[in-house]
Amino acid sequence: MKGDDDMADPIQEICDWWRTEIIDMKPGMIRYRGYAIEELIGNVSFAQMIWLMTRGTLPGREEAELLDTALMSAVDHGPQAPSIAIARMAATCGVGLNNAMASALNVLGDVHGGAGEQAVEFYQSVAKRMDNGASLVSAVASEIEAFFSGGGKFLPGFGHRFHPVDPRAPRLLKLVDQAAAKGGVSGRFAIIGRQVETELASRKGKNIPMNIDGATAVIYAELGFPAPLARGLFCLSRSVGILAHAWEQTQQGGRNKGPIPRQYIWTYDGQATQPVPDCT
Amino acid sequence: MKGDDDMADPIQEICDWWRTEIIDMKPGMIRYRGYAIEELIGNVSFAQMIWLMTRGTLPGREEAELLDTALMSAVDHGPQAPSIAIARMAATCGVGLNNAMASALNVLGDVHGGAGEQAVEFYQSVAKRMDNGASLVSAVASEIEAFFSGGGKFLPGFGHRFHPVDPRAPRLLKLVDQAAAKGGVSGRFAIIGRQVETELASRKGKNIPMNIDGATAVIYAELGFPAPLARGLFCLSRSVGILAHAWEQTQQGGRNKGPIPRQYIWTYDGQATQPVPDCT
Amino acid sequence: MKGDDDMADPIQEICDWWRTEIIDMKPGMIRYRGYAIEELIGNVSFAQMIWLMTRGTLPGREEAELLDTALMSAVDHGPQAPSIAIARMAATCGVGLNNAMASALNVLGDVHGGAGEQAVEFYQSVAKRMDNGASLVSAVASEIEAFFSGGGKFLPGFGHRFHPVDPRAPRLLKLVDQAAAKGGVSGRFAIIGRQVETELASRKGKNIPMNIDGATAVIYAELGFPAPLARGLFCLSRSVGILAHAWEQTQQGGRNKGPIPRQYIWTYDGQATQPVPDCT
Amino acid sequence: MKGDDDMADPIQEICDWWRTEIIDMKPGMIRYRGYAIEELIGNVSFAQMIWLMTRGTLPGREEAELLDTALMSAVDHGPQAPSIAIARMAATCGVGLNNAMASALNVLGDVHGGAGEQAVEFYQSVAKRMDNGASLVSAVASEIEAFFSGGGKFLPGFGHRFHPVDPRAPRLLKLVDQAAAKGGVSGRFAIIGRQVETELASRKGKNIPMNIDGATAVIYAELGFPAPLARGLFCLSRSVGILAHAWEQTQQGGRNKGPIPRQYIWTYDGQATQPVPDCT
Repeated sequence: MKGDDDMADPIQEICDWWRTEIIDMKPGMIRYRGYAIEELIGNVSFAQMIWLMTRGTLPGREEAELLDTALMSAVDHGPQAPSIAIARMAATCGVGLNNAMASALNVLGDVHGGAGEQAVEFYQSVAKRMDNGASLVSAVASEIEAFFSGGGKFLPGFGHRFHPVDPRAPRLLKLVDQAAAKGGVSGRFAIIGRQVETELASRKGKNIPMNIDGATAVIYAELGFPAPLARGLFCLSRSVGILAHAWEQTQQGGRNKGPIPRQYIWTYDGQATQPVPDCT
Repeated sequence: MKGDDDMADPIQEICDWWRTEIIDMKPGMIRYRGYAIEELIGNVSFAQMIWLMTRGTLPGREEAELLDTALMSAVDHGPQAPSIAIARMAATCGVGLNNAMASALNVLGDVHGGAGEQAVEFYQSVAKRMDNGASLVSAVASEIEAFFSGGGKFLPGFGHRFHPVDPRAPRLLKLVDQAAAKGGVSGRFAIIGRQVETELASRKGKNIPMNIDGATAVIYAELGFPAPLARGLFCLSRSVGILAHAWEQTQQGGRNKGPIPRQYIWTYDGQATQPVPDCT
Repeated sequence: MKGDDDMADPIQEICDWWRTEIIDMKPGMIRYRGYAIEELIGNVSFAQMIWLMTRGTLPGREEAELLDTALMSAVDHGPQAPSIAIARMAATCGVGLNNAMASALNVLGDVHGGAGEQAVEFYQSVAKRMDNGASLVSAVASEIEAFFSGGGKFLPGFGHRFHPVDPRAPRLLKLVDQAAAKGGVSGRFAIIGRQVETELASRKGKNIPMNIDGATAVIYAELGFPAPLARGLFCLSRSVGILAHAWEQTQQGGRNKGPIPRQYIWTYDGQATQPVPDCT
Repeated sequence: MKGDDDMADPIQEICDWWRTEIIDMKPGMIRYRGYAIEELIGNVSFAQMIWLMTRGTLPGREEAELLDTALMSAVDHGPQAPSIAIARMAATCGVGLNNAMASALNVLGDVHGGAGEQAVEFYQSVAKRMDNGASLVSAVASEIEAFFSGGGKFLPGFGHRFHPVDPRAPRLLKLVDQAAAKGGVSGRFAIIGRQVETELASRKGKNIPMNIDGATAVIYAELGFPAPLARGLFCLSRSVGILAHAWEQTQQGGRNKGPIPRQYIWTYDGQATQPVPDCT
């Protein structure tokens, strides 16, 4: 069924509907962002390719290494994480690895996977205050004050319900420092992140150290990623743990694995037994 | 509600229900496969981490590079692939990037994402025939014969409906050759893969060249990955393209993006108009 | 590994972790909200069961009929809807019907599936103004004013980019009127919905008639459903169309169905061809 | 970019790419299978609509009631089912109800959601043997023998790991008997199902009674649904429980709900602590 007849070229319009700057293809030819795939293969790492695909350019060496490190550092936090538990349960239900991965990846939402994105936004807001003339100390203090007075409870990227100190964060920040020393990144967001830690401690009267999300957010902010991509990159990273656990569960076997061994039945705390009234 | 009362330690049983060899955790401590995360960070690449998580050991240098290359080579094949189109449409529906990625990743099933897994299985079957004494030529010929006489139509990993020659395959095989020359891998599956190409051409009377799935399957087989993990690794790889397209679509905007511009309505070829009978 | 040793009964705590008021089970016994399943079967319809499961009680006859009607009225809007297109494409990728349904259902987010939820919220806000003493006309005018002055662009539940008049809306409202006449519902939200239409027309100088989401939202509001459940109920409803299309596509066949026939390639409007720099 | 130039009408070809018999639409007009939506609304129930959408015709009264009953009978089996646990965990991760439902629905695969489909296939195979002249007793015995000698372990639709007798099955079969007595269905598959139970008991020396999947499969087979749709219908049914539990969990609150309370850590049974070797 046709639409507007006065359209100059409806086929062109339909091809334009799917227009993209990412990939160009002809029979026998594939180019990403203008680079021929056969030239990229062997010359560009997986991390560089992730950058190229999402950003449109190739990163420098230090940038690529930091991205690679951020990705490798957040792959897994064990079966108590809902995403990992879901992957393992799904793997026993008769679906493919891709399906088990999808059900798990799907729950990396604002609460489970969004802290990195929120932390990048927070750091960027601090940086903007500084661009507008505020000092580091005052920019951080103002942004934290705005966060808590706006009803925020847990500053994204700081504090951990399980780890008193997250062993990943200081190590990641040290690598940022090294890259900054080499001129690969500015180091600005590592400074901001540390000042947030300092200000939080002073405000709360106890250490609330930076966690993995706060540390990878420093890296993603240093590398210039827009905040929403911090979520996307975390999804790529955590997909590795999701895959590893789904695969291990497949090898362990089991059918329709529930959250606890099946002889333990949940607590029922609803209505007492009652007869069905006539409601037809 | 309790179950068996004679259980020595029900809490132990419940913790065992979620047992894993992948990750060990205590407050302030995270170890993967026995390695402390703070030692892994900065020393192990994303590709090495993927290997460690899924295989349990750290790979050698050539192995890690080949894995990295296989992952970077298959990230995207454009918006005509259902997974990519789904990612882009999902991104316009008011869901998160993680959700758009999940809907897309979910369709990398036997047809869309399974060729690599099937090709690894095929190569491994050939290798098994050779382990049992068959020559390369005869093992490949027998396995191909078994495939087609069993009703197979398209040998997984060979031929492409769009590319006369897939530009990724020869480049990847060359890297396998180089790694084999350095002793990093055996090179056995590259030989098998090429012989499959030769035998197919002779059988069909025309070239049916190895495609990206056949080439990455050579790498995954060389690296000793079980066949189902070839699917899992492809999922990790294609997730990059899925993310890039979902993100580009987010920036392009649009609401409820359909498969074609909205003035074009699908063809209806069903029942003519009819009155609703009384069926209450 | 054990946790707190001073816990009175850790098994109880674990069973409580999964506590629910919805379902009680013992070997040979299943009760929903206190009703034995063998009594429910044959006495309670699917729509009544949906109500029971989500609300905790059994609905009256008119209530159940209105819920049933709202569910049956929104099952499908054709393959131009992203959810339906996704279901059809997924069905060609070698995944199960459940997976195809999941990828599609997943995109019923704020933009694609959220208008009903938002419309229920809007109606409830109007009703609250009236509870606080405002007249119908003034409550509706104030709420609309608040919506547009707050930056809203399209009032959820009103207007349609394809249908000048949505044929489902007036029919659904008539059924609400009939149920109200029988005393099954109050009819209050039908009145509010119609006044919104009137006010919108006066404000915009043209009719912006109620659409399917606005009409089912009238029903869900009449029935007392919390707004988020309006989204959930729409998911149940649209899942029917999703299933029907996934199944039809399965029967039509096809492999890796893209959004348009495969000889049409998307428009590439990115970087011109460029050589890969040395970035290793 | 254009494709074949000799195509009579490329726009027609593109509209045909999305052709369907399910829904016809013009501005202001929606028809399903030829029926105008405004006529269906108020005259056709949700169950009848499900039939119409998936089968193409409207069912008779007894048929519609049996379908409605099969759908209402399988909505939930509690939080020990992976799908329900997933829905509840997902609801705490900061994603929408639609996303929580999708992650859960997605795992209704061959093991978790496939028994109904497999049971319909099994019954249909028995019926085919009878169509070819075998007696009921011999057809059932042969089909069961074929199942177990082919390596089958659990006959789909019979036996339950939790319920000695599934309270849903006898009740559902009784309703099939009643519908058969009224001539609404043939009753053939109820007879087959009961004979399977008899034969299994004789073969195994103990009762292995029909479960919910076996009983709903009797209904779906009586109603003439193709086996794969039995899976699809189960997905619609279980989506109700999934929604109810996701919603209850939302109201209970919680963030990143794991499978067990967070002070209990999984058992780690992998590699002892080891230093990271130099692998850069």
